[in-house]
Amino acid sequence: MASFHLCTAARSLLKSYRHRAVLKTVQGLRVWELRDMYLCTSIAVHNSMEEILRKTVAPLSTYEMRDKSPPPPESNSMEFMHFYKSLEKEQKLEFLEKLSYDFGVDHRWASDLAAKLLDTQGREAATILQVEDRLRYSLTPRYRQLLTHISKVPGGVKFLVDLRADLIELKISDSPHMRDLNSTLKSLLSEWFSVGLLRLERITWQSPCEILQKISQYEAVHPVRNWTDIKRRVGPYRRCYAFTHASMPGEPLVVLHVALTEDIANNIQGIVREFSTLDADEDVNKINAAIFYSISSTQAGLQGVELGNYLIKRVVRELQSEFPHMAQFSSLSPIPGFSLWLQGALGQLKKEGRAIELLSEQEWREVEDVTGAVPGTPALEALRRLISTSEWIRSDRLVQALEPALMRLCAWYLYGEKRRGYALNPVANFHLQNGATMWRLNWQADTSPRGMANSCGIMVNYRYFLQETSTNSAAYLQNKVIKASEQVMGLVSQFQKNSKL
Amino acid sequence: MASFHLCTAARSLLKSYRHRAVLKTVQGLRVWELRDMYLCTSIAVHNSMEEILRKTVAPLSTYEMRDKSPPPPESNSMEFMHFYKSLEKEQKLEFLEKLSYDFGVDHRWASDLAAKLLDTQGREAATILQVEDRLRYSLTPRYRQLLTHISKVPGGVKFLVDLRADLIELKISDSPHMRDLNSTLKSLLSEWFSVGLLRLERITWQSPCEILQKISQYEAVHPVRNWTDIKRRVGPYRRCYAFTHASMPGEPLVVLHVALTEDIANNIQGIVREFSTLDADEDVNKINAAIFYSISSTQAGLQGVELGNYLIKRVVRELQSEFPHMAQFSSLSPIPGFSLWLQGALGQLKKEGRAIELLSEQEWREVEDVTGAVPGTPALEALRRLISTSEWIRSDRLVQALEPALMRLCAWYLYGEKRRGYALNPVANFHLQNGATMWRLNWQADTSPRGMANSCGIMVNYRYFLQETSTNSAAYLQNKVIKASEQVMGLVSQFQKNSKL
Amino acid sequence: MASFHLCTAARSLLKSYRHRAVLKTVQGLRVWELRDMYLCTSIAVHNSMEEILRKTVAPLSTYEMRDKSPPPPESNSMEFMHFYKSLEKEQKLEFLEKLSYDFGVDHRWASDLAAKLLDTQGREAATILQVEDRLRYSLTPRYRQLLTHISKVPGGVKFLVDLRADLIELKISDSPHMRDLNSTLKSLLSEWFSVGLLRLERITWQSPCEILQKISQYEAVHPVRNWTDIKRRVGPYRRCYAFTHASMPGEPLVVLHVALTEDIANNIQGIVREFSTLDADEDVNKINAAIFYSISSTQAGLQGVELGNYLIKRVVRELQSEFPHMAQFSSLSPIPGFSLWLQGALGQLKKEGRAIELLSEQEWREVEDVTGAVPGTPALEALRRLISTSEWIRSDRLVQALEPALMRLCAWYLYGEKRRGYALNPVANFHLQNGATMWRLNWQADTSPRGMANSCGIMVNYRYFLQETSTNSAAYLQNKVIKASEQVMGLVSQFQKNSKL
Amino acid sequence: MASFHLCTAARSLLKSYRHRAVLKTVQGLRVWELRDMYLCTSIAVHNSMEEILRKTVAPLSTYEMRDKSPPPPESNSMEFMHFYKSLEKEQKLEFLEKLSYDFGVDHRWASDLAAKLLDTQGREAATILQVEDRLRYSLTPRYRQLLTHISKVPGGVKFLVDLRADLIELKISDSPHMRDLNSTLKSLLSEWFSVGLLRLERITWQSPCEILQKISQYEAVHPVRNWTDIKRRVGPYRRCYAFTHASMPGEPLVVLHVALTEDIANNIQGIVREFSTLDADEDVNKINAAIFYSISSTQAGLQGVELGNYLIKRVVRELQSEFPHMAQFSSLSPIPGFSLWLQGALGQLKKEGRAIELLSEQEWREVEDVTGAVPGTPALEALRRLISTSEWIRSDRLVQALEPALMRLCAWYLYGEKRRGYALNPVANFHLQNGATMWRLNWQADTSPRGMANSCGIMVNYRYFLQETSTNSAAYLQNKVIKASEQVMGLVSQFQKNSKL
Repeated sequence: MASFHLCTAARSLLKSYRHRAVLKTVQGLRVWELRDMYLCTSIAVHNSMEEILRKTVAPLSTYEMRDKSPPPPESNSMEFMHFYKSLEKEQKLEFLEKLSYDFGVDHRWASDLAAKLLDTQGREAATILQVEDRLRYSLTPRYRQLLTHISKVPGGVKFLVDLRADLIELKISDSPHMRDLNSTLKSLLSEWFSVGLLRLERITWQSPCEILQKISQYEAVHPVRNWTDIKRRVGPYRRCYAFTHASMPGEPLVVLHVALTEDIANNIQGIVREFSTLDADEDVNKINAAIFYSISSTQAGLQGVELGNYLIKRVVRELQSEFPHMAQFSSLSPIPGFSLWLQGALGQLKKEGRAIELLSEQEWREVEDVTGAVPGTPALEALRRLISTSEWIRSDRLVQALEPALMRLCAWYLYGEKRRGYALNPVANFHLQNGATMWRLNWQADTSPRGMANSCGIMVNYRYFLQETSTNSAAYLQNKVIKASEQVMGLVSQFQKNSKL
Repeated sequence: MASFHLCTAARSLLKSYRHRAVLKTVQGLRVWELRDMYLCTSIAVHNSMEEILRKTVAPLSTYEMRDKSPPPPESNSMEFMHFYKSLEKEQKLEFLEKLSYDFGVDHRWASDLAAKLLDTQGREAATILQVEDRLRYSLTPRYRQLLTHISKVPGGVKFLVDLRADLIELKISDSPHMRDLNSTLKSLLSEWFSVGLLRLERITWQSPCEILQKISQYEAVHPVRNWTDIKRRVGPYRRCYAFTHASMPGEPLVVLHVALTEDIANNIQGIVREFSTLDADEDVNKINAAIFYSISSTQAGLQGVELGNYLIKRVVRELQSEFPHMAQFSSLSPIPGFSLWLQGALGQLKKEGRAIELLSEQEWREVEDVTGAVPGTPALEALRRLISTSEWIRSDRLVQALEPALMRLCAWYLYGEKRRGYALNPVANFHLQNGATMWRLNWQADTSPRGMANSCGIMVNYRYFLQETSTNSAAYLQNKVIKASEQVMGLVSQFQKNSKL
Repeated sequence: MASFHLCTAARSLLKSYRHRAVLKTVQGLRVWELRDMYLCTSIAVHNSMEEILRKTVAPLSTYEMRDKSPPPPESNSMEFMHFYKSLEKEQKLEFLEKLSYDFGVDHRWASDLAAKLLDTQGREAATILQVEDRLRYSLTPRYRQLLTHISKVPGGVKFLVDLRADLIELKISDSPHMRDLNSTLKSLLSEWFSVGLLRLERITWQSPCEILQKISQYEAVHPVRNWTDIKRRVGPYRRCYAFTHASMPGEPLVVLHVALTEDIANNIQGIVREFSTLDADEDVNKINAAIFYSISSTQAGLQGVELGNYLIKRVVRELQSEFPHMAQFSSLSPIPGFSLWLQGALGQLKKEGRAIELLSEQEWREVEDVTGAVPGTPALEALRRLISTSEWIRSDRLVQALEPALMRLCAWYLYGEKRRGYALNPVANFHLQNGATMWRLNWQADTSPRGMANSCGIMVNYRYFLQETSTNSAAYLQNKVIKASEQVMGLVSQFQKNSKL
Repeated sequence: MASFHLCTAARSLLKSYRHRAVLKTVQGLRVWELRDMYLCTSIAVHNSMEEILRKTVAPLSTYEMRDKSPPPPESNSMEFMHFYKSLEKEQKLEFLEKLSYDFGVDHRWASDLAAKLLDTQGREAATILQVEDRLRYSLTPRYRQLLTHISKVPGGVKFLVDLRADLIELKISDSPHMRDLNSTLKSLLSEWFSVGLLRLERITWQSPCEILQKISQYEAVHPVRNWTDIKRRVGPYRRCYAFTHASMPGEPLVVLHVALTEDIANNIQGIVREFSTLDADEDVNKINAAIFYSISSTQAGLQGVELGNYLIKRVVRELQSEFPHMAQFSSLSPIPGFSLWLQGALGQLKKEGRAIELLSEQEWREVEDVTGAVPGTPALEALRRLISTSEWIRSDRLVQALEPALMRLCAWYLYGEKRRGYALNPVANFHLQNGATMWRLNWQADTSPRGMANSCGIMVNYRYFLQETSTNSAAYLQNKVIKASEQVMGLVSQFQKNSKL
C-alpha cells in the first residue's frame, strides 16, 4: 500500500526537473527506490490523472452563487500546470481526453433548462431572459472555469497557448469532446489576445537582443543566417513590427517584415541579400512603396486567432503616419506548393497522355532543342527533371523558354486551384481574406535553392488597395470571389486556352 | 423631404465637435440652415439612433459561417463610438435601451434549438455536443459581436469601459434587457481585464509625471494635497503599485499604497503626514510590516471585475521577494459610514427611549460632567452634537471617556451590521472577501476632519495571514463567517452586554 | 591631551548627520561629553583643517613620475568631501583660503624652470619642447590633482559644482589665491561639462516626475504655480529641453522652454496663461515660429561654463529637424532692471532739474491731465509714483499716453546702457553674445505684477537669424557692436532726440 | 590657373563620399575632368592642408580676451573633421605633423613671460600669480583650442578618439612636436573620459542588440562564436558590465565579464564552454566568488586613459551590493607571450649550451622516454617542437611530466621578467597596477588552441584583496614590488633553484 503511494508520487517526482524542493526529496531516496518508482509510474500516472482532475477542476457553482464563489487557491492551477508539463505526449492525450469527457457540460442540467425555456414561451421578457441566461450558464463546460483560473496565475496564459498547440498537434478532430475543449480554449484565447490588448512594437537594432534572436529564429519565410542578416532587416529602408502581449513579455506573437522601396519590388534578392544601404540614411524621396515580404506567426497555439491581418492593418496605419504620401502597399509572397502541384499535374497529364497540352508547340521545341530530347514523352520527362532539379535556371535559353508556361501554370495554381472553394495556396488564402488583390506574378523573383524548389523561383505580389480591402475581403469570404489584376487574369486565360487540366 | 434628411444629418453634425471634416461642411452652411438644423435635431437624433444601430450592429452569422465572416470595416465601430459620445445622458439611456431590446438574443432561434436539444436525448455524444454548441451560439446577443468589434479599434476598450460606467450610473436594474447588456459587457471586460493580462507597475518618483498626477487625482482615501505629499507616498518606506493594461497605456486601473513599518501601524498620521524620512535611505532592519493604507479603483466601468484583490496578492508576492523575512501584512483602513450609522442608531434609541443603554452609567456621568448636561435625554443630545461636530477631540477627558463606548459601537458596526448577510461596511466586505482577518480597531487613528467626520477618528486593520486567506475567503463568501481577532471579538461582546440595538 | 583629541574628533562627529557609524559612536557618549565636545569644536575645526589638508592634498609627483603615481585611495577624497560639508560658511572660507594658499603652485620650481627655458633659447626643438612641458607641469597648482581625484568618486563632480557655488558666493575677488583656485576649478568644470558630453533631453508630461518637479522649481523667469501650469509648458505647442550630464543623473543643468506659434509672440500671457490647447493635437500648419520664452541655469557652480547658448543651438537643430520649414526663431525675454534704472534716471533728472526733457510736452500734458498734477516737478512725482505702483496699467488713457515714452526709454536702456562696453542688461548681454538681433520691444507684454514691477510690462524679442549669429556674436564680443532692428533703432533715436541723459 | 583651382577642389571632392551636395557636383563633370582631377590631387591635397589649417586653427586670443572670444563657427570644426577623414594614412601623418609643428606653443611669447616671471621674484603674491597664469596660458599649444572646439560638435569627441588612435598607430615617438600633440590630446581625453563622467551599464540579454553585437566583436580574450555564446556570457551566474559615455552613445568603452562561482575558478572552459545553466535560476548560495575572466578596451584612442581599473572597482562595488557576503574577487587571466618567451629562452639556452639546466634530470628522462629522443640537445629539440605544436597535451604522461617545469617557468616569466622594472607581461602589469595579488597559476586552465599556443594552457588568477589594493598598487608603482602568493613564490624559487636564466 505504501508502495502504491510511492508509485503515485513517483512519476511526477521524476519529471519535476524544475521543482527543486521535490528534487531534494528524490535525492534523499536510495537508487533501488528510484528504480521501483520508475517501474510503477505508468499506473501511477494514470491514477494521478484522475486525482489531479478531481482536485483541480472545481464543480461549477450554482447559478445563484456564480459571482459569489471565491477563486480556488492559485496552488490548484499551479498543480495542474505542473502535472501536465510532466507528462509525455501520449499521456497528455489521455489526460486531455479525460478532462474534456468528464468535465464538460452537464447535459442533464442543460436539457432541463432547455425544457424550461420552451415552457416560458409567451411569458414576459424578464422571465424569458432569465431562463436564457441560466441555460447559457448551464452550457458552460466545467473545464472552462479551470482554464480561466489558470490564465490568472503567472505563466498561465502562455501555458494555455502551449496546451492548445498540443491539442492541435494531437489531431483531435474525431473526438467531439476534444473538439469542444479546443473550441472553448480557442474562444478564450481569442478574447485574451484580442487585438485591442496587443501592443505594436517596432523592432530595431536597438531592441533587446532577446527579441531579435527570437525574431531571427521564427523567420520561416526567408531564413536569417547571421547577425548582419537580421541587422539588415531592421536597418534603413526596412521596418520590422511585432505584436506583443502583456501576458508573454518579450515574446513577439506575429512578426511583419517590410521593405521600403521606390517601386513595388519584383524580387526578394534585392531585399534580403542587399547590404549596400546597411549604414545609409534613409532618403524619404526614394520611399514610395511598402513591401510586406515576410509575416510569421510564432505561437502554434494561437492558430485561428486573427493576428496577422490586424498586424498588417496596424502597420499600414503606422507607415501612413510616418510617410503620409505613401500610396503603394503590397506583399512580396512566396508560393509554397507550386512545384509540388506542378509535378503532380505533369504526372497526371502524362498518365492521361495529354502532356502535349501543357506547352505550346513552340515551347516544346525549345525544350527539345535545349535538352536534346525528342518530342513527346521524353521531352516531358526532360521537363520534369529540369523542374525537380532547378537546373534550367543555369540556361538563359531555358529560362526564357519556360517563362510563359510556368507563369501561366502558376497563375492558374494560385487563382484556379481551390479547397472548399477558397484558394488552395495558404498564403494566397491569407492575403485574399485580408482583402488584398492578386496583383503580379514575378519571374525569377526568388532564385535561392529554396525559392527554386518551392515555386520555380516565381513570387507573387498581393497588393493592398486600402479603399477596397473590406469589399474584397467580404466578397472572398462570403462568395469566394478572388480579386485579381489584369496581368494575373491574362495569365489565367492563357492557361485556360492552352490547358485543359 | 430634403429638409428631413437635413435634420437627420444635423444632430450628428452639430455634435461632432471633434470631427473636422464634418465641421467644415457645417461651416459651409448659411446661418439659417444651422438654425433649422438645430430645431429638428431632437427628431433627428431619434431617427439617427435607429439608423446607426441598423447600420453598425451586424446580424449574427449563421452557425456555419461563424468563423468565416470577415470583421465589419473598422469605420462601423468608429461611427458607433462617435455617435454615442455625441449624445446627452438621457439620449444615451434611450440609445442603450434600443440596443439591448432590439439587438439581443434571437428568442425564436434559441427556443428552436432548445427543442432540438430535447429531441437529441439518448443520441450519441457527437450529436448532443453539436446541438449544445449551436444552442450556446444562438444564445449570443447580437450586440455582443458589436462590442467585440469595438474592442478591436484604437480606443475601443476604453470606450466600452466608459460605456459600462454609464450603464451603471443610469441605474438600469429594472430593465431585464439592460441587465443582460450590462452582464454581457461585464463578462467581456472580465476576460479582457483578466489578471493574467495586467501589468504590475511600481510607481516611484521617477515614474512619468502623467501617471503620478493621475494617481494623485484618483487617491480618494487620503487625498493628496501637493507634490511633496505624493513624493512622500512613493518615497522611502513607502511602495505604490498599480495594475495597468495594454489597451489603456499610462492609465493605472487600481492603485495600492503601502507603508513599510516596524510594527503594524495604528494611525494614518504617521504615514501620510510624516516627512522626516523623505530623503532617507531605507533601513531594512526597520521594516517588519507592510501596511496597505489605501487602495483605489479608478474605472467605474470595471465595477465587479476583480482587480483589487489580485493587486493585493501580487503586491504581497513582490514584497516577499524584496523582504524575504517580512511576516506582517495588514491594511490600515478607514471606516466610512460609521458616524452616519451611529447618528442613526442614537436617533433610533432616543425614539425608543432606550438611549440609556448606550453608555454605562459611569460613561454617562463623564459626558454629563464635561458637557454640563443633565442626565438622560439632554446628555444624549449633547453626545449627538459632540459627535456631529467632532468637538470632543479637543477635550482630553472626553477623548478618554468616549473611547470604550465608541470602540465597542464601531466594532459592532463592522462585525455585526450586515447587508444580505455580508458586512454592511464596503471596505470590510472587500477585505473579508479577500480572506483578511478583522484584526484591530485603532483609537484616534485618523484625526483629520475627514477621519473624524467619517468614523470618529477610528480606523481598523484588516490583517492578511497568508496561510489562512483562502480558507477565510471561502468561509466568508459561502457561509458568511467573519474571522475576527480577540480584540475585536472582545469589543463586540462588550457591546452586546451593554446594548440591545 | 585626551580631551584635545576628543575635540579634534568632536566637530566632525557632531556634523556627520549622515554618517551612521559615527552617529552610533556619538550616541554612546554621555551628555556632558557632548557638551564639552561642542565647546572645543572651534579650535578643533581649525586644527583639523590643517590635518585634513595635509592628509588629503598629496604633493605633486615629480615630472618623471607624473603618469606613474597610483591615484590616492578614494577614501582620501571622501574624507575631504565629508569634512568640507560639515563646515559652517565662515569655516568654509577659512578652509578654502588655506587650500588655495598652502597648496597652490610651487613658485620656486616654476621660476627655476622659467630660468631653464630662457637658457634653452636657440637649442633644438626637442629640448625646448621638453622644458616647456616641464614648466607647464610645474605651473599646476597642487590642489588641481585633489580636485581631479574628487571628480572620480561617486558624487564628486556634483560636490565640486557646489564647492564652486560656495566660492562664487563667498566673493573671493580680492584674494589672488582664491581667484586662482576658482579659475582652476572653472577650467576643470569646463572640460567636464563640455557640450560634447552633455545629453539633450526633451521633457514631456511622460518624463519622470522627479525631473518635472525640479524644472518647476528652477523656473525663475515665469514661475510655475501648479501641476496644470507645468503640464501646459510641456504639452502641445510647447517644447521643453534640458541638458543633463552623466555625473548628475536626473538633474537638468539648463532648461529651455519653447512655444511653437504662428507668429513671433509679442506677449507672455498667451504662452503661460493659455490652457485651451492643453489637450489638443498640434496642427503643424499653425507652427511657424519657435519662441524661447524661458531659459534657466540651475547650477550656480557652473557660472561661466557655457551651457545656455549651446542649448539654444542644439534646440534650434532639433526643431529644424522636426519642422523643416520653420524659419522664425526668437526669444521672448524679460527686461529685469529696467524699472529700477528708470527710477534712478528719473531721480537723477529731477536732481539736475532736467525732468522736463523726459517726455514731450504733449506727453507731460497727458500725465497732468490724468493725474491732476500740475506741470513740472509735481507731474514728475506723479509719474514716479505711477511707475513704482504700476497703477497706470488700470487707466487706458495712461497706458496709451505712456507707451511712446516708456518704449523709447526701454529701448535706450537695452541698447544704450553699457557695462565695460557690453549691454548692461544681463539677458540682452546673453542673447547678443549668442549672436541674436535685438528685434522688437513689445508693449504690455507681461502684465503680471512681476512683469510690471520689473519692466513696466515691456518684453523684448531677441531674434536668431541663423545665418547671421556667428557674425553678430563676433562683432558684439570683439567690437561691442549691437545688432538691432529698425524698430529698436527707431525708438533709440526718438529717445536721443528727446532726452540728453 | 583655373585648372589649379580645379585641382585644389578635386581631392576633397573625390574623397567626400558622404557629402551629397558635393557628389552631385562631381556627377556634373565629364569623365576626362574627373581623370584630370585625379592626376592633380597629390599637389592639391598638399596645398589644401595648408589652407585648411590656416582656416580652422584660429590664433590664440590675447590673455585678456581669452574668455571673451566667441567660439568659431561649428562649420570650421566640421570642415577640419571632414578633410581629415578624407585623407589617406600617409597624408594624415603629413597633416598632423604640420598641425603639431606650425600650430603649437608660441615659443617667443612663452620665453618672454618666463623672463617676466623671473623679474617678479620677491614681488607680492598677486603679481606673481598673475604672471604665472599668463605664462601658463602662453604655454598652451594653439591646436589645443581647435581640439576643444571639435569636441563640442556632434561626433567630435569620437573623432578625436579616432584621431588619437591614428597618432598611436603612426608611431610618432621620434617627433617631439607629435609627442606634444599626443600628450595634449591625451590630457584632454583624460578629462572628458574621467571616470566621474562614465556610466556603468550592466549588459544583459535584454540589452539592445547593437550593444551586444559590439561586445561580441570587441571580446578579444575569449572570442565569442555565436548567439548562444554571447547569451551565455550575459546569462545566469555571469555578469557583464561596461562603461559608456554620453558623447558616444551605444558604444561600450571598456567591457568586463564576470563569472559568479562557488570557488575561485581555475580554468576557463567551465566558464565559456558550459551551457547547462543557460536557463537556470541563480542559486545565491552557490555564489561565493566573482571571477573577472575578460576585460577589453574598445577604443585604441583611449590608450593610457585609465578606464579598466575604475571599471573593476565599480563592478566590485556593484557586486558587493548585490551579494553582500561575497568575499572573493579574482581575475582568471591569460598569459599572452609566455610561449613566445619560452621559445626564446630555449633558443638562448641552447646557444649557450645550458639547455640542461631547464629541467631536472628526472624531467629530461620523461621527455626522452615519451618522445624517444636521446638526451641533451635532441631532447631539447623535441621539447621545443612539442611546445610549438602543443601536441604534448594529448599525452597524459607528458602533461604530467611537463607540469612542474612549465609552471615554474611561467611563474618566473610573470614574476621575474621585467620591462623598466615593471612586469613584462602586460596583463600582469595591469592587475598589479590595480593592486591585485599574483595569486595562483592554473595548469591546463585554457586548453583551447589559442590558450595552448599562447601560454601552454596555463592561466593565472590575480586576486583582489580589497583591503590591500591601494597599498599593493602604490608599492608596485612606486617601488616596483610585486605582491605574490605562496604558491607563486614557491614556483619562482623552484625556478631559481633549477635555472640560471
